Amino acid sequence: MSANLSDRDNNDSRVDRQMQAMGKRARKASRTMAAAEPGAKNAALFAIAEALIANRSAILSANARDMREGRDELDTALLERLELNEKRIEQMAEGLRQVAALADPVGGITDLNYRPSGIQVGRMRVPLGVIGIIYESRPNVTADAAALCLKSGNAAILRGGSEAAHSNQAIASCISRGLTDAGLPADAVQVVETTDRAAVGALLRMPDYVDVIVPRGGKGLIEFVSRNAQMPVIKHLDGVCHVFIDEAADIEKAIAIAVNAKTQRYGTCNTMETLLVAEPVAGKVLEALSQDLRQAGVELRGCERTRKLLGPSIKPANDSDWAEEYLAPILAVKIVDDMDEAIDHIETWGSHHTDAIVTENVTRARAFIRAVDSSSVMVNASTRFADGFEYGLGAEIGISTDKLHARGPVGLEGLTTLKYVVFGDGHVR
Amino acid sequence: MSANLSDRDNNDSRVDRQMQAMGKRARKASRTMAAAEPGAKNAALFAIAEALIANRSAILSANARDMREGRDELDTALLERLELNEKRIEQMAEGLRQVAALADPVGGITDLNYRPSGIQVGRMRVPLGVIGIIYESRPNVTADAAALCLKSGNAAILRGGSEAAHSNQAIASCISRGLTDAGLPADAVQVVETTDRAAVGALLRMPDYVDVIVPRGGKGLIEFVSRNAQMPVIKHLDGVCHVFIDEAADIEKAIAIAVNAKTQRYGTCNTMETLLVAEPVAGKVLEALSQDLRQAGVELRGCERTRKLLGPSIKPANDSDWAEEYLAPILAVKIVDDMDEAIDHIETWGSHHTDAIVTENVTRARAFIRAVDSSSVMVNASTRFADGFEYGLGAEIGISTDKLHARGPVGLEGLTTLKYVVFGDGHVR
Repeated sequence: MSANLSDRDNNDSRVDRQMQAMGKRARKASRTMAAAEPGAKNAALFAIAEALIANRSAILSANARDMREGRDELDTALLERLELNEKRIEQMAEGLRQVAALADPVGGITDLNYRPSGIQVGRMRVPLGVIGIIYESRPNVTADAAALCLKSGNAAILRGGSEAAHSNQAIASCISRGLTDAGLPADAVQVVETTDRAAVGALLRMPDYVDVIVPRGGKGLIEFVSRNAQMPVIKHLDGVCHVFIDEAADIEKAIAIAVNAKTQRYGTCNTMETLLVAEPVAGKVLEALSQDLRQAGVELRGCERTRKLLGPSIKPANDSDWAEEYLAPILAVKIVDDMDEAIDHIETWGSHHTDAIVTENVTRARAFIRAVDSSSVMVNASTRFADGFEYGLGAEIGISTDKLHARGPVGLEGLTTLKYVVFGDGHVR
Repeated sequence: MSANLSDRDNNDSRVDRQMQAMGKRARKASRTMAAAEPGAKNAALFAIAEALIANRSAILSANARDMREGRDELDTALLERLELNEKRIEQMAEGLRQVAALADPVGGITDLNYRPSGIQVGRMRVPLGVIGIIYESRPNVTADAAALCLKSGNAAILRGGSEAAHSNQAIASCISRGLTDAGLPADAVQVVETTDRAAVGALLRMPDYVDVIVPRGGKGLIEFVSRNAQMPVIKHLDGVCHVFIDEAADIEKAIAIAVNAKTQRYGTCNTMETLLVAEPVAGKVLEALSQDLRQAGVELRGCERTRKLLGPSIKPANDSDWAEEYLAPILAVKIVDDMDEAIDHIETWGSHHTDAIVTENVTRARAFIRAVDSSSVMVNASTRFADGFEYGLGAEIGISTDKLHARGPVGLEGLTTLKYVVFGDGHVR
């Protein structure tokens, strides 16, 4: 027993040392990346895209090995996400080229103004430094995340799932090659080689080398990372999104938005999970809407008033329904007296992700936009629009449900920060 | 022993319940504050200022009690900071009026643009929600912090030092009165009454009610808060600030800036702690500068080359000097070959607070600004300029040495965040 423990300790401290060395290299590379010219970063993105295409057979055979080894352990959905093919490799390459085409987020100076003292003060957008990304199964994240970190002038340490280890390493070697070809340090993007779980813990314990952690994956992973990280975390927790249909709603728009917000995709974080309907229009809205939704195969769970309206075949919704992110063809429905009750419900049960009002009344639209404390608040639009591409960020590293630093879809800007720059001519206080 | 432990447990859970109740009230008040009109918030600020003046004798007698009770335990510097008088109360009131005069940071929408899908996407500046502030000795922080939280549309829970408990409560009752007079909820600013230290721990353990914690005080407090807070922390750690005198420096400017950065005030975080001088100008600079600094009573500690130049009466500086924030009339001095070595030194030993280059060479000025990863990077100006008032923020809650969310002096904007707002006409995906 004590021998085992000490074996484990030895192993952990070996992994710790490996990760620390990786962190030190990343920190060094981050300084070069922060000062790299846009042209060099874009050249690296194109070179990585080229290397992915040139080495597609090596990537596909590494992926085949992951698929073979995972066949008995992983379910169909996970295997589907793990699998690469020629088309997916081409998509990865295209993603890199698209990131190259985005505006460079680094170095811009804003609000540079003279102060009464005579100094000139402004703010420069700069990279965060070293970004750690911990993710699961999809190997394309390796290329996508590398591209965003690189373009934003950061160094990255990527830790993918062990089930995709061979695929990730094959992609990693294309990334190194592309960086080197463009004259940038290969250490700017490092993919953790060991599949030892201790590597995750070690990564979370090196705040001197890692400035921020982005966990991408299931809730278990995100909670583990949030609890243990000694540096800030940009994370996405729940998406309990609401659509509120106001008494002044255009009924056709309301039905179209509700159907789209629920049924366009069930498994996404910006899918509506609870529908709130103002009492005066509840009859008109819910009779039509419930038919559309049931035709689409959506199970409804309703409050008392909803069940009175639609009949007892509707399952009753209780508090756990208001709090749940179904990620499934299930919708909780509540009839409310008015907008104030809707906002109360959203603030009590929601997850501050994305919430929408459907109304033609401009006063209530303005009040809803102001009062709802969510990362995206919408008027007369489907919650499904809440993502980086739809918002014009070009690409996203994820959607943040945190309030500080980055809120909502996080693109290149979320991987940067602002420092103050001051210019004088020998000024003293 | 076990009876004592259980007494303490009972007490802790009583304090926990009190703090939770306070948090719940703050969360509720934060919703009113987020939607409050600028006029109401400004009216409250003026009403609080008025209440402070009207109740100055009550505040002074509460303060006299704190001074009396602290006489035997606190040193002179702490007593000096604790003491209030008519002038300091007038300054507090004036601070409130100045915050009222600042532009309202809440509700502004930026970058509202149409997207190809037809939706309109923008970002609205909104309050963070509930801000917890933990601070020591100076009772004026109670009024200052309340003003900034109120103006930025947040609710606040303030926990001052037990040594200032009576003063803080007297100020707190003026704040409640001002809020109520302006028709805003008194719970928008709550000052923790109990001096039980368990209240701090309880405050740090309620992420559902407190969105961000700002610790203001000594390093011990800040480290304790960072380690134990379950919500984000906006904090200030070390200020190991550098001035680098480049070979192309104007020698007169260099000497004026170095003297000012070191001697204008010793105890502030933006005071220079290490001077770096390029070898080609070291002789000219250091001979004159060392005289000025020694005349001002500053002790120099030098690298080998510095001691060769200025003589062995200069104490040798070692690695612990490069890392130290003296906050005292002591200066570490290092002669470096060139700017690259200076930047290496700053990145290795600095605290990413404020660092300056003195040079007439525009290429190196540009490179230094870009390469130094500090919250403020300066060209030809004294590091002492790094503060909210000098930068035009109007007021500051502190200076952040973090990279995420708020970096450098934190004013009203740092107490807000951006949410996405989306407008459509029934748009679906």
